[in-house]
Amino acid sequence: MEVAQRIGQTISFETCQEEWNALAGDYEKCLEKNKEYRKTAESYHSQRNACKSQIDRQMKKLKILKESLKKTSSSNEKKELLDKIEERKRSLDEMGKFLPRKNGFYLRLIVGQVNMILDSTADKFRYKDEYEKFKLYCSITTLGFAVALVFFLNHRVFDAMFSFVLLWYYCTLTVRESILIVNGSRIKGWWVMHHYVSVALSGTNVIWGDNEAYREFRPVLMTFSIYQSLVQVMQYYYQSGCLYRLRALGERHDMDLTVEGFQSWMWRGLTFLLPFLFFGHLWQLYNAYKLMTIGIKYNFNEWQVPALALLFFTLFCGNFFTTINVVIQKQKKRIKTKEQ
Amino acid sequence: MEVAQRIGQTISFETCQEEWNALAGDYEKCLEKNKEYRKTAESYHSQRNACKSQIDRQMKKLKILKESLKKTSSSNEKKELLDKIEERKRSLDEMGKFLPRKNGFYLRLIVGQVNMILDSTADKFRYKDEYEKFKLYCSITTLGFAVALVFFLNHRVFDAMFSFVLLWYYCTLTVRESILIVNGSRIKGWWVMHHYVSVALSGTNVIWGDNEAYREFRPVLMTFSIYQSLVQVMQYYYQSGCLYRLRALGERHDMDLTVEGFQSWMWRGLTFLLPFLFFGHLWQLYNAYKLMTIGIKYNFNEWQVPALALLFFTLFCGNFFTTINVVIQKQKKRIKTKEQ
Ligand SMILES: CC(C)(COP(=O)(O)OP(=O)(O)OC[C@H]1O[C@@H](n2cnc3c(N)ncnc32)[C@H](O)[C@@H]1OP(=O)(O)O)[C@@H](O)C(=O)NCCC(=O)NCCS
Ligand SMILES: CC(C)(COP(=O)(O)OP(=O)(O)OC[C@H]1O[C@@H](n2cnc3c(N)ncnc32)[C@H](O)[C@@H]1OP(=O)(O)O)[C@@H](O)C(=O)NCCC(=O)NCCS
Repeated sequence: MEVAQRIGQTISFETCQEEWNALAGDYEKCLEKNKEYRKTAESYHSQRNACKSQIDRQMKKLKILKESLKKTSSSNEKKELLDKIEERKRSLDEMGKFLPRKNGFYLRLIVGQVNMILDSTADKFRYKDEYEKFKLYCSITTLGFAVALVFFLNHRVFDAMFSFVLLWYYCTLTVRESILIVNGSRIKGWWVMHHYVSVALSGTNVIWGDNEAYREFRPVLMTFSIYQSLVQVMQYYYQSGCLYRLRALGERHDMDLTVEGFQSWMWRGLTFLLPFLFFGHLWQLYNAYKLMTIGIKYNFNEWQVPALALLFFTLFCGNFFTTINVVIQKQKKRIKTKEQ
Repeated sequence: MEVAQRIGQTISFETCQEEWNALAGDYEKCLEKNKEYRKTAESYHSQRNACKSQIDRQMKKLKILKESLKKTSSSNEKKELLDKIEERKRSLDEMGKFLPRKNGFYLRLIVGQVNMILDSTADKFRYKDEYEKFKLYCSITTLGFAVALVFFLNHRVFDAMFSFVLLWYYCTLTVRESILIVNGSRIKGWWVMHHYVSVALSGTNVIWGDNEAYREFRPVLMTFSIYQSLVQVMQYYYQSGCLYRLRALGERHDMDLTVEGFQSWMWRGLTFLLPFLFFGHLWQLYNAYKLMTIGIKYNFNEWQVPALALLFFTLFCGNFFTTINVVIQKQKKRIKTKEQ
């Protein structure tokens, strides 16, 4: 029928009636399948809840046991038992990875109580990949926008639009990262905080009036935005590289060799990236300093100036110390892997 | 053990060891259950996909059949068959309600490709209920904020914060409504558009500088905000009333009586609400007019003024005509129910 229609043949009512009758069988099958599916869905949900509550109960009992155990006098056996408990906890955690969990506060505020747990490792990987790509596209967009602002878009309105875009971008990132976090990502708390601070920064920028002080800071801010977008693009290559390699690792299962290979790849990526990151952090410190000099020059007659300075300083501190911390941790882990 | 711990009894290492051994059995059971669950999950996902593609195929075939049928000469039989096709389509749609669907553009932009389909009618109801409550709480918050702004918060910064809150509120509403829409809600397109326009309006408000023109419009805007929040609270009572009654209807199954009962309840709620709504719409029109007079007075030296006027005018048109349209539709449906 489809073919007949496509080549423009006229179709009689009888043919239609026949087609309709033929479809009846398919429909019956559909109904049946659907019934079966609803049944499976029901047992899926009830099993899921049962698993969830079983694991929760076990976890609770383990916690109590651990507390009691800690109070007993120390011995080799005690240490062994504690290790075993930790091991069991990890195993239960692993099982809980695909079970529903309560959304975090922010996520609940935005989307409400929908189950956000991705159903399989492949889905989780796809979601993270999508998130990294999203960051990449947004970075490229803000890069283009910032360049345009430096060179030919000179009205304050465009600056405000740029700040709005950043505002939207950071808000969206926070939503997506909350989803990643309920799905077991170990994103450091600071990077999420970082986005809230950036939201405040963009918001303050929007309501800074168009005056001399603003125009003095504008070139610094715009070139910083360009630099930051560029660094984010580099970060994308590093982080999606990590992601793909980690997935390959998870699939291959011959641990020892590849873990070391992964770590050396990561290390090379990181040492390439780090100078750019630190330079960016110093630039944030400079922004804070520059804003303070502007504030002094104009006697702090606008609250936006010291507020922005404070926000940039917060960004500097958080970024700088978190990055250092990450590097130290990775270094330690690397030495440990090499020793083994 | 828990009890012993709570009353502060000391627990020996041996007791701990015993408890650990006792837990081993539970753990085994947990493992088993989890394995079973993973299996069910797998068949759940594959059945879900199978159902989905079967329904899609049926839908496609029905579409082709309908097109061909339309081209045949008209007859009573043809009309009958067309009706049957529509009926079948509805039934397939009903089946598709709990199957995954692609997220809309906006939702994909914000949260990415996570399955947002709520799994059961009860879940859908709960989600909608949560959404209505969210609107209520936000309305009460903005009401309080607006009152504070009128009476004692006089700095421009607080106004900007208020606009930011509204901005956030409308963005979040759009996310939640997108989730409702993929879950089969029939929210009219305009109400979603309404939020985008409101976002633009709040955004423009934020970047309107603090000057005479602004201060002339401020009292009008603030009292309007108060009025709007109040109307939204009333709307909450109407819409959550509809929601609860609809659920009761769905559960009871003795259609004829209750449908009419529901409609008469709805009608009474609506006629109570409508004057307040229309007054609000007229106020939006007045805001547009007021902004134009302000614009003329200051020779339109700020683009924000005509932009806001245009946005308020758009809100008025959309709200007014959509509401009228809804009322007419409901009236028709009511007459039809009564005739039956
Ligand atoms: C230092 C850095 C490169 C380390 O990246 P990394 O190797 O992925 O770090 P970790 O191993 O601690 O990552 C743990 C998790 O957090 C995520 N993560 C790390 N940094 C992140 C960031 N800035 N934003 C979002 N997620 C991040 C990782 O993807 C990983 O996720 P997973 O658990 O789902 O696999 C990274 O944190 C970074 O780029 N920070 C600098 C950002 C910055 O300073 N920007 C301003 C420049 S001007
Ligand atoms: C006129 C009105 C009361 C009708 O409400 P209703 O009876 O629920 O309307 P419908 O039957 O068309 O509703 C269809 C669906 O859209 C939803 N809906 C209706 N109006 C909505 C709105 N303004 N925002 C969000 N969702 C809305 C309903 O909840 C329903 O959802 P469902 O399919 O999940 O059950 C309502 O649309 C309304 O309040 N509009 C006026 C808003 C306004 O003008 N505000 C400015 C005041 S100053």
